[in-house]
Amino acid sequence: MAARTSVDPRTIRTLALLAGLPSATREEVIASGRLRELPHDTRIFGQGERAGRAHALLAGCVRISQVGSDGEEILVRLIGAGEIFGCVPFLTDGLYPADATAMVDSVEISWDPADLLALMRRQSQVAINMAGIIGKRLGEAQERLRELATQSAERRIARTLLRLLEQAGCRDDEGVRIAFPLRRKDIADIAGTTLHTASRTLAEWDRRRLLVSRNQHLTIVSEAELRRIAERTAD
Amino acid sequence: MAARTSVDPRTIRTLALLAGLPSATREEVIASGRLRELPHDTRIFGQGERAGRAHALLAGCVRISQVGSDGEEILVRLIGAGEIFGCVPFLTDGLYPADATAMVDSVEISWDPADLLALMRRQSQVAINMAGIIGKRLGEAQERLRELATQSAERRIARTLLRLLEQAGCRDDEGVRIAFPLRRKDIADIAGTTLHTASRTLAEWDRRRLLVSRNQHLTIVSEAELRRIAERTAD
Repeated sequence: MAARTSVDPRTIRTLALLAGLPSATREEVIASGRLRELPHDTRIFGQGERAGRAHALLAGCVRISQVGSDGEEILVRLIGAGEIFGCVPFLTDGLYPADATAMVDSVEISWDPADLLALMRRQSQVAINMAGIIGKRLGEAQERLRELATQSAERRIARTLLRLLEQAGCRDDEGVRIAFPLRRKDIADIAGTTLHTASRTLAEWDRRRLLVSRNQHLTIVSEAELRRIAERTAD
Repeated sequence: MAARTSVDPRTIRTLALLAGLPSATREEVIASGRLRELPHDTRIFGQGERAGRAHALLAGCVRISQVGSDGEEILVRLIGAGEIFGCVPFLTDGLYPADATAMVDSVEISWDPADLLALMRRQSQVAINMAGIIGKRLGEAQERLRELATQSAERRIARTLLRLLEQAGCRDDEGVRIAFPLRRKDIADIAGTTLHTASRTLAEWDRRRLLVSRNQHLTIVSEAELRRIAERTAD
């Protein structure tokens, strides 16, 4: 299978979910998972469906989105290589809370939830890793909620870009490129602002050469200046 | 100690964190924890401090709040009897992300994080329970973020009350009383709206006898009508 060859074997061995496991156990977990190619635009699961698999991404990126009551789609999170997704439902109500779609050609490994639960019982480190990963995401969600209540849209957009940089930044000639393809609407969603405000702010930062926007990809040229904006108290 | 007698012994045995454990293990976990009375207004921990203990509440209620960049306090979550709090940091960066304050006379049990981690290693069910509890809170935080992006303030306030009802509702003569003492500002914070809008909406619902507000306590008289408002699509 062509896509398998594009999976960096190191990724599969550096999944945060498997951190701290003896390598024999790690190999066993990997062997019990199912590899699957996800061509661009593949719908991996849908909001409200029974969570039949627990997933981790090995290559590419996945968009987790929800449809609001008015039918509008909201971006919940972007998943990069090495991250788990759709892994909370088998610990809670058994239903996927959101849609997952491959944003580019991607590869995932997934497990039967019963197998993953059995593994967590046998290897408590996997359960501890899972709690830590989910706890980190809870912290981020609470940070976003707090920002919405207290910070200007400009600061929220700066913080959103810095979080994406930490999650999926790759250094290149111009600066640090965010590996996710990003529409301005996505950035507006994550920052909790309007498309209009996000577009205006990003265009202004592009003009000031804080960042370069090209083919739905953002490269942060001046991380220091972005950090300054993110930390700035109310003007 | 007076307060200890006010702890319902069933609460300590029905902590979600200890669900599914053999009773001998549950007793061992309880014995390894430290019981502490928390008189009204006790500051249990502070934002940015090293997380020296992992906590669960046995009686009373605790307010988890953060101070925003403008110095204004934001309510993150209310913790009721049987719930854990301040348990994520020892799985992530080791620092409490928020302040915790007893809202009424309360009692907690807390553990040394190293002891709790050792327990999670030994008893994977505790780690699995922890992941499930944190996962449920992540789902709620994401729901709040989605509501902020897509729903009217009125619907968000209705949903906030319904979630508090589920978390801490006690049936009484008038309806279902929310056990937490709630200021209108708290409800505004959780619903992500202004004090003005929350006050106006609650006053209107009080006038319509959907709820009764008395001494910082809310009793929901018509849960069905509140649910209708919460489900209503944009007018």
